[in-house]
Amino acid sequence: MAAGSGFGNLFRVTTWGESHGKGVGVVVDGCPAGLSLCEEDIQVYLNRRKPGTSRFTTPRKEDDCVEILSGVFEGKTTGTPISMVVFNKTQRSKDYSEIASYYRPGHADYTYDCKYGFRDYTGGGRSSGRETIGRVAAGAIAAKLLTEMGISVDAYTKSIGPVGIIYENFDLEQRFENAVCMPDAEAAEKAADYLEQCMKESNSSGGVIECSIKGVPAGLGEPCFEKLSANLGKAILSIGAVKGFEIGDGFGVAQSTGLTNNDAFYYDENGEIQKKTNHAGGILGGISDGSEILFRAAIKPTPSIHAAQETVNKSGENISVNIKGRHDPVIVPRAVVVVECMAAITVLDALLVNMSAKVENLKKFYEKL
Amino acid sequence: MAAGSGFGNLFRVTTWGESHGKGVGVVVDGCPAGLSLCEEDIQVYLNRRKPGTSRFTTPRKEDDCVEILSGVFEGKTTGTPISMVVFNKTQRSKDYSEIASYYRPGHADYTYDCKYGFRDYTGGGRSSGRETIGRVAAGAIAAKLLTEMGISVDAYTKSIGPVGIIYENFDLEQRFENAVCMPDAEAAEKAADYLEQCMKESNSSGGVIECSIKGVPAGLGEPCFEKLSANLGKAILSIGAVKGFEIGDGFGVAQSTGLTNNDAFYYDENGEIQKKTNHAGGILGGISDGSEILFRAAIKPTPSIHAAQETVNKSGENISVNIKGRHDPVIVPRAVVVVECMAAITVLDALLVNMSAKVENLKKFYEKL
Amino acid sequence: MAAGSGFGNLFRVTTWGESHGKGVGVVVDGCPAGLSLCEEDIQVYLNRRKPGTSRFTTPRKEDDCVEILSGVFEGKTTGTPISMVVFNKTQRSKDYSEIASYYRPGHADYTYDCKYGFRDYTGGGRSSGRETIGRVAAGAIAAKLLTEMGISVDAYTKSIGPVGIIYENFDLEQRFENAVCMPDAEAAEKAADYLEQCMKESNSSGGVIECSIKGVPAGLGEPCFEKLSANLGKAILSIGAVKGFEIGDGFGVAQSTGLTNNDAFYYDENGEIQKKTNHAGGILGGISDGSEILFRAAIKPTPSIHAAQETVNKSGENISVNIKGRHDPVIVPRAVVVVECMAAITVLDALLVNMSAKVENLKKFYEKL
Amino acid sequence: MAAGSGFGNLFRVTTWGESHGKGVGVVVDGCPAGLSLCEEDIQVYLNRRKPGTSRFTTPRKEDDCVEILSGVFEGKTTGTPISMVVFNKTQRSKDYSEIASYYRPGHADYTYDCKYGFRDYTGGGRSSGRETIGRVAAGAIAAKLLTEMGISVDAYTKSIGPVGIIYENFDLEQRFENAVCMPDAEAAEKAADYLEQCMKESNSSGGVIECSIKGVPAGLGEPCFEKLSANLGKAILSIGAVKGFEIGDGFGVAQSTGLTNNDAFYYDENGEIQKKTNHAGGILGGISDGSEILFRAAIKPTPSIHAAQETVNKSGENISVNIKGRHDPVIVPRAVVVVECMAAITVLDALLVNMSAKVENLKKFYEKL
Repeated sequence: MAAGSGFGNLFRVTTWGESHGKGVGVVVDGCPAGLSLCEEDIQVYLNRRKPGTSRFTTPRKEDDCVEILSGVFEGKTTGTPISMVVFNKTQRSKDYSEIASYYRPGHADYTYDCKYGFRDYTGGGRSSGRETIGRVAAGAIAAKLLTEMGISVDAYTKSIGPVGIIYENFDLEQRFENAVCMPDAEAAEKAADYLEQCMKESNSSGGVIECSIKGVPAGLGEPCFEKLSANLGKAILSIGAVKGFEIGDGFGVAQSTGLTNNDAFYYDENGEIQKKTNHAGGILGGISDGSEILFRAAIKPTPSIHAAQETVNKSGENISVNIKGRHDPVIVPRAVVVVECMAAITVLDALLVNMSAKVENLKKFYEKL
Repeated sequence: MAAGSGFGNLFRVTTWGESHGKGVGVVVDGCPAGLSLCEEDIQVYLNRRKPGTSRFTTPRKEDDCVEILSGVFEGKTTGTPISMVVFNKTQRSKDYSEIASYYRPGHADYTYDCKYGFRDYTGGGRSSGRETIGRVAAGAIAAKLLTEMGISVDAYTKSIGPVGIIYENFDLEQRFENAVCMPDAEAAEKAADYLEQCMKESNSSGGVIECSIKGVPAGLGEPCFEKLSANLGKAILSIGAVKGFEIGDGFGVAQSTGLTNNDAFYYDENGEIQKKTNHAGGILGGISDGSEILFRAAIKPTPSIHAAQETVNKSGENISVNIKGRHDPVIVPRAVVVVECMAAITVLDALLVNMSAKVENLKKFYEKL
Repeated sequence: MAAGSGFGNLFRVTTWGESHGKGVGVVVDGCPAGLSLCEEDIQVYLNRRKPGTSRFTTPRKEDDCVEILSGVFEGKTTGTPISMVVFNKTQRSKDYSEIASYYRPGHADYTYDCKYGFRDYTGGGRSSGRETIGRVAAGAIAAKLLTEMGISVDAYTKSIGPVGIIYENFDLEQRFENAVCMPDAEAAEKAADYLEQCMKESNSSGGVIECSIKGVPAGLGEPCFEKLSANLGKAILSIGAVKGFEIGDGFGVAQSTGLTNNDAFYYDENGEIQKKTNHAGGILGGISDGSEILFRAAIKPTPSIHAAQETVNKSGENISVNIKGRHDPVIVPRAVVVVECMAAITVLDALLVNMSAKVENLKKFYEKL
Repeated sequence: MAAGSGFGNLFRVTTWGESHGKGVGVVVDGCPAGLSLCEEDIQVYLNRRKPGTSRFTTPRKEDDCVEILSGVFEGKTTGTPISMVVFNKTQRSKDYSEIASYYRPGHADYTYDCKYGFRDYTGGGRSSGRETIGRVAAGAIAAKLLTEMGISVDAYTKSIGPVGIIYENFDLEQRFENAVCMPDAEAAEKAADYLEQCMKESNSSGGVIECSIKGVPAGLGEPCFEKLSANLGKAILSIGAVKGFEIGDGFGVAQSTGLTNNDAFYYDENGEIQKKTNHAGGILGGISDGSEILFRAAIKPTPSIHAAQETVNKSGENISVNIKGRHDPVIVPRAVVVVECMAAITVLDALLVNMSAKVENLKKFYEKL
């Protein structure tokens, strides 16, 4: 669908809202009926992207309280659109004249002006990180349904700047215990030190988010253009700061060989087909193979920094700017839940589409009705 | 669109066909009327993916002659669907019983069986590299139209295994002069040596393809889910062997900082806004910024290799197989034109969608009619 | 798009909300940037479908005040999604146990239960007439933009039960002066008498709505499946009570002949091509021909009536019910603006899609950027 | 999807080809795997629209032999795209200069020129009746799958000009026994006489096609915009000559009342919910209710007639033309199978989409895998 704010085929998500407007929200159309759902289910996910929860996130007070406006009746989804909204506490005030006058480097100010002729210059408008609230609210629903199907989706920080996690220390629960969302307490400390350093230098850092999806049945994803890997890639690359996506061994395959990269199949003790390795990241020919799906996203450094930067204003001048306000020195930790939610939406959509892959299942299904 | 063989919004591509069936083809719907087009325009692109053109590609004789069946009248596109077909010379013969009995590692045999209950086991069916013929035929049209608009799309091999090009030696035309499609004659020789070695070891190699798009006007791509970068990512990740996609500095941003990664704007001598650097790869907030779009794709090693591999057969046994036939030791060189074509399709689609971004243009447009 | 609450390609509308939930609303994605828009523009249209404005509409007090939550900045559309909401004044109260226990004839109670396993039984949920609020809010935007392009969309009541308008008396403005939305004062009086009679008999009436679209440039609509007539048909038939759609002479063509039905072309005094008659209703081969587009919709009688009706309850019994509450004796007058709005959305979408029909226009367009 | 030659969500049809080009065809993407299918299954349907089978259809010799090019392996659909082609016997010859110079009344010549700047003037190009070959080929597959699910789709001529069938004489099989496709032998004779008269007067006739769909489970169709009735309407109105669509009592509801039009529910002897009448035509709130779906389409008279007609040429002159060649005096009989096929495609697509309506079914479905 050409209009840019919708995603998904059968589980269809449409987000709306600007950073400093009245609110941000999402409509989820095509959610199967009968899922238990309440606002708390959503709020738990939104709280994970909330600023002000650590020294590396903006101390602005934003409550981000979600309201479900439709599609749930007597505690269950009805099959009709679920509309959710988070009203903004911080709406437009009157000191944007400066920011309106120039283009911030690394931001979408210039490209929005090119495309639309003007832009909502308050707080980044639609290209703000607050746009992801709708994604997270929708993803919380998808994740809840996946969980009931025995499918888990877990993202975490893999690295920040030069500091990466060590898999020997891996403890998924740990990601909720530190400010950088790392599943490795030791690495988290080092990353925190590195970020302190960045802040002192009025600078910011990039990083890598990794996401693990377990329990996915084999067979999800459509051949050719609707490969599960391609749709995961689009989902993740549609998040503002993402500049790279890789699945399984990813860019590592470029220096690998067939003998190493091919995953050997074998029958396990239960007579189930398994793979000895998982270089493929759980997807073969674009279709899930039943093993863990593992992908990574490269997140760019926060473009808003306090240090002086060169840019242009709309009066035709080359200028130097210092962007005021409080800025997170890193996007990664708050983007973790966004990655997780986009992955959940994508997998659920593939799950729904796959139901009609075989005539056999069609017949069984309608026999029952 | 859920069915997997379609791509694009306004410039809509639908591919069909199996490796060893009657043929492969594509229907291009929504191509603007009035483009000069003949079969030779398409054939030139198809020839670039043709096997048998070097010692690293399969010596099977496949002519891959394209026929345009509709949508062109008196040498011009009519605006109605352009159907193109390449009839297969090598159709199914009768010796597939062995390959039908087991699952080739690294191939989609197993996942197709999981999804559909059975599969076309002759030559890989729909997951074969021949599926890309339809993409290339459609992309050739997109590329021709883009060229007329002053937009160029050029892909080339950036690395094969450990051998990468050196930008000081960069000569785009050189990519047509060597068997590995590298724009660097020296690197091409080293890569060829490396591939000879792989072949001796009955092994295969991965690599990286890079693609440069020049002349793209600022403003292409839609906010949020239809970002130009997200759609390029999906386009490229939907190609069979691609395991990673990155734009601009890509995974490099993870270790970069805001000060380095932000591209400073400035006014050039003509009063045009330019960027001093292009870490963003030509896209800001998902929308083209007018500078070169540069992305890379990681291509896995050919999964079909002569060396013995462990796998399972359908009788419940763990077995060892040697996959017969001639196999390319590397996918990269033949995939270069596929990457180029998918990029062209994506950019053209964004170009068409962008025409209705502003009321102002809408009025100008219909005033003229 | 499979999920049922979205409509349109480039101008994409997604509605949400139930009759007795928190509210109803719509997200409009893909509206071109730069259109002046305020809540009053929308409210004017919503007021036309408001109940309680005549003796033939429900006297329930519903203010239906629209709020624009996003997509408009400094009085202009930004090109990003426009989210609009009408919060319900009448939310769920507690006396629905009876209505929950049986299936109302002529309503969607039974089919929703079949599809989803249960339903929101308060006020009809998603199949309520209040669902059309989102359509009208979106249509108001489309109509405003069309007006600026010189295109008018006007619907009106053509008949109620046996009482039809007489074209000699036709006065479009008159439709706002009477309770039945007829552009003929005399017919309106007769229709009112007929409705009084229906109400006395605890009965209801059907009718026909006609819609005239003027100023549409030739060339809108795509060949084959996206014919302008087919999309208008879908748009109108998607309105709850519509059971028939016809364009131009409609069902009249079945008894016509080629000699009569063909519209002769001629050059007018300005050298413009015109048609002597308009049996085609402004569309030839699915594409607008520049003349008035004229279509009609058949609206069924209000299914909720006070008279006793036979039906079944969920306990397996055949029962007789009298549906309580105040019911409009006719749907037609309130549906007029809904028809108008769905037509406006469809025409605007076709207008946007048509911009990329020719290479020639593509070149002119991007030359200017 | 904006590009006009595609239809359907999960069962996705893309047609291509012009009347006098190399051929016409269709790609069916998303057909469930495992359906037995051979060319004869398709040919039977194509033969029903074949010209030259009666005195009222064009005696041109067109074999219309279908070839399946992909998507079927060992006699079964594989789940991947099914490409089908009918190569034209009558390709372009050289005597079109006259027809190229003017606009035929009632045809799409003028509107195609307006939209695209020029047109394929040989045989009507894409607006020719031959475009429906792709629809029929795709519909034959849908109908076969529906038949296996116990769903039948049957269309027939209801009236030609003033001659309508009498339901007391109704015999569905009879439609294959007469030249006008009427399920009433007596009416068929009268219609034939009427058509003879039309031919003598160099004139043509319109008519009505009716379609009955039986065995559809309750629950198909999505709320709001994807109502089954709305999609059937779009499907049918997208056929070239259709000017009206109505379902159930259709335009009759306009003069009906609630008491008459509401269908009472009751429990039958098996405890199944049934309706005493079927004014609704099998669809309530846009969703199938389990009873017969019945709709009608108004077909315009053949626009190509031998009688002199006024029109314009491209040199700016008002002229009179006699359109040469052999023309059918009525479109209806050959359109019957097209209506049937479009209905089958629409119902099958709704059947597939409906599988994911409930969480309950999702769980049962994936439990089995």
